[in-house]
Amino acid sequence: MNIEMIEAAATRIHGHARRTPMLSSPFMDKIAGRRVFVKAEALQHTGSFKFRGAWSALSSLPDDVLKAGVIAFSSGNHAQGVALAAREHGTSAVIVMPADAPQMKIDNTRALGAEVVLYDRATQDRDEIGARLSQDRGLTLVKPFDEPLVIAGQGTVGLEIVAQSAELGVNASEVLVCCGGGGLTAGVALALEAKAPDMRVRPVEPEHFDDVARSLEAGEIKRNANLSGSICDAIITPQPGDVTFPLLKRLCGSGIVVPEEDCLRAMAVAFARLKVVLEPGGAIALAAALYHGDKIEGDDVIAVASGGNVDADVFQLALTKYGKDA
Amino acid sequence: MNIEMIEAAATRIHGHARRTPMLSSPFMDKIAGRRVFVKAEALQHTGSFKFRGAWSALSSLPDDVLKAGVIAFSSGNHAQGVALAAREHGTSAVIVMPADAPQMKIDNTRALGAEVVLYDRATQDRDEIGARLSQDRGLTLVKPFDEPLVIAGQGTVGLEIVAQSAELGVNASEVLVCCGGGGLTAGVALALEAKAPDMRVRPVEPEHFDDVARSLEAGEIKRNANLSGSICDAIITPQPGDVTFPLLKRLCGSGIVVPEEDCLRAMAVAFARLKVVLEPGGAIALAAALYHGDKIEGDDVIAVASGGNVDADVFQLALTKYGKDA
Repeated sequence: MNIEMIEAAATRIHGHARRTPMLSSPFMDKIAGRRVFVKAEALQHTGSFKFRGAWSALSSLPDDVLKAGVIAFSSGNHAQGVALAAREHGTSAVIVMPADAPQMKIDNTRALGAEVVLYDRATQDRDEIGARLSQDRGLTLVKPFDEPLVIAGQGTVGLEIVAQSAELGVNASEVLVCCGGGGLTAGVALALEAKAPDMRVRPVEPEHFDDVARSLEAGEIKRNANLSGSICDAIITPQPGDVTFPLLKRLCGSGIVVPEEDCLRAMAVAFARLKVVLEPGGAIALAAALYHGDKIEGDDVIAVASGGNVDADVFQLALTKYGKDA
Repeated sequence: MNIEMIEAAATRIHGHARRTPMLSSPFMDKIAGRRVFVKAEALQHTGSFKFRGAWSALSSLPDDVLKAGVIAFSSGNHAQGVALAAREHGTSAVIVMPADAPQMKIDNTRALGAEVVLYDRATQDRDEIGARLSQDRGLTLVKPFDEPLVIAGQGTVGLEIVAQSAELGVNASEVLVCCGGGGLTAGVALALEAKAPDMRVRPVEPEHFDDVARSLEAGEIKRNANLSGSICDAIITPQPGDVTFPLLKRLCGSGIVVPEEDCLRAMAVAFARLKVVLEPGGAIALAAALYHGDKIEGDDVIAVASGGNVDADVFQLALTKYGKDA
């Protein structure tokens, strides 16, 4: 992994992924006690940064491989990113999803043109289904984060942060990134290493699902005890990846761990002050900027708001609880 | 009024107002039966396009006049736009607001550094208060729409639409604009006349508050019978302006009138598909694009989403009613 891969991804993505805006509000600055800039990746196609990595991966495939189609495992943002990228490349995507995934996500993935293969989590082996489909139909697997081409695509967020920071006169030393498997975090960190070495990435995770923070502290990969029971579903993964963790270890500052409740508060603030819809996991870096400033250094801070694919009822919960104070 | 004024405003605004993104979603295209592009002015500073006009007006004042301060009448988006523009110009703003305006709007305007002067709608004359303050303190009035410098500022939205349409390959012949007093509508129409004469503005208004549509049909200014009772508060004005109406008459296609309920539906769609928060009046052009396509011409359509300053309870109403179907 190197900066050339990210720059090459940026060239392939240009004109396809959106250059999302970097937003701010004097009201947020007041809450945080410093200037806060939000890289609004919720405004990306399919509502999250995942479209960048999917596009990066698909646009790198040889024509004949691409033509045979791709396959991904996901019930969430990666599914939609791969589905749309495949459609726009004129190829087919198979997305293997658990049968108990939210119907809306299944419907959305299908509506984006993907073939959805459902499996029963209790009785069927996801990997076996995927391997069989790949073999029978010659499909190429697009991993959600532990894949250099995907990391390179997510790293284009970092290139844009560097350019937009210069345009806006941002003087931030830390960039907070919502962190699951570490694809976005590693990609942004690589971009900053090359283009803005004064800036450092800080991964942000929910309480009880802080595998990256603990892994960074221990210097080796640690797992989460649980994999469910969080509203931050988009960023819950078993452990950092084999490709991503060495990058995180080399390039990132310590992890920041945030109570889930602060994500709901940050969602209400983003609603009121930025007019952007965030999902809980996509709001966690902003939550760290707003409510955990004692763990952050610098006059300014940048928070990546990684996604906005939230059900109406969860969003309403955030507004009911915190909409009046935001 | 001419295109040179808009281009000059664009130069003054550059680096201060945001170049808001033009967003789209295949799900919206499916609802509309054509491609829909949304110019997301809700993402502008202070949550609406009003900041552009305020900046345009303030940045045109001679230094000594600017230094003396400005005054505006508004309980809504214009108040916040003028307050922030004044603060960033290092001058003072007095905003005359009705004492029964929503507390949050009063608080926000104050938090942006403005001096808020409250008056009692029943017993006090707003214009008398404003005239006295202007005279005593040498303040310059910044009108909300019927002022060429303000129209020029709003017209920068049109310049961006032309540039972004070229970047995105948009082939639209009609640009739908949420219309109150007509400042944004006239500004965009002037920009299109000069830069994209194949595109035509269509003003969009709520049922029962369709003064512009009726005025355009009659060829002369018509008034609204009522001035309250709409959820689209941001775009309810008594009648088109003396400066704006001749421009609208010369440049716009016929008005489109949309039931309020469709604004709530469009807000839920913008939540689910664009991840952008819209207020009812700011969603009405999108509502026309999504649900009134029979009144629109062209393969593609552009809708300006003019603002997102909506209370949490109104937003929740939209999600409760339409969040499941969006």
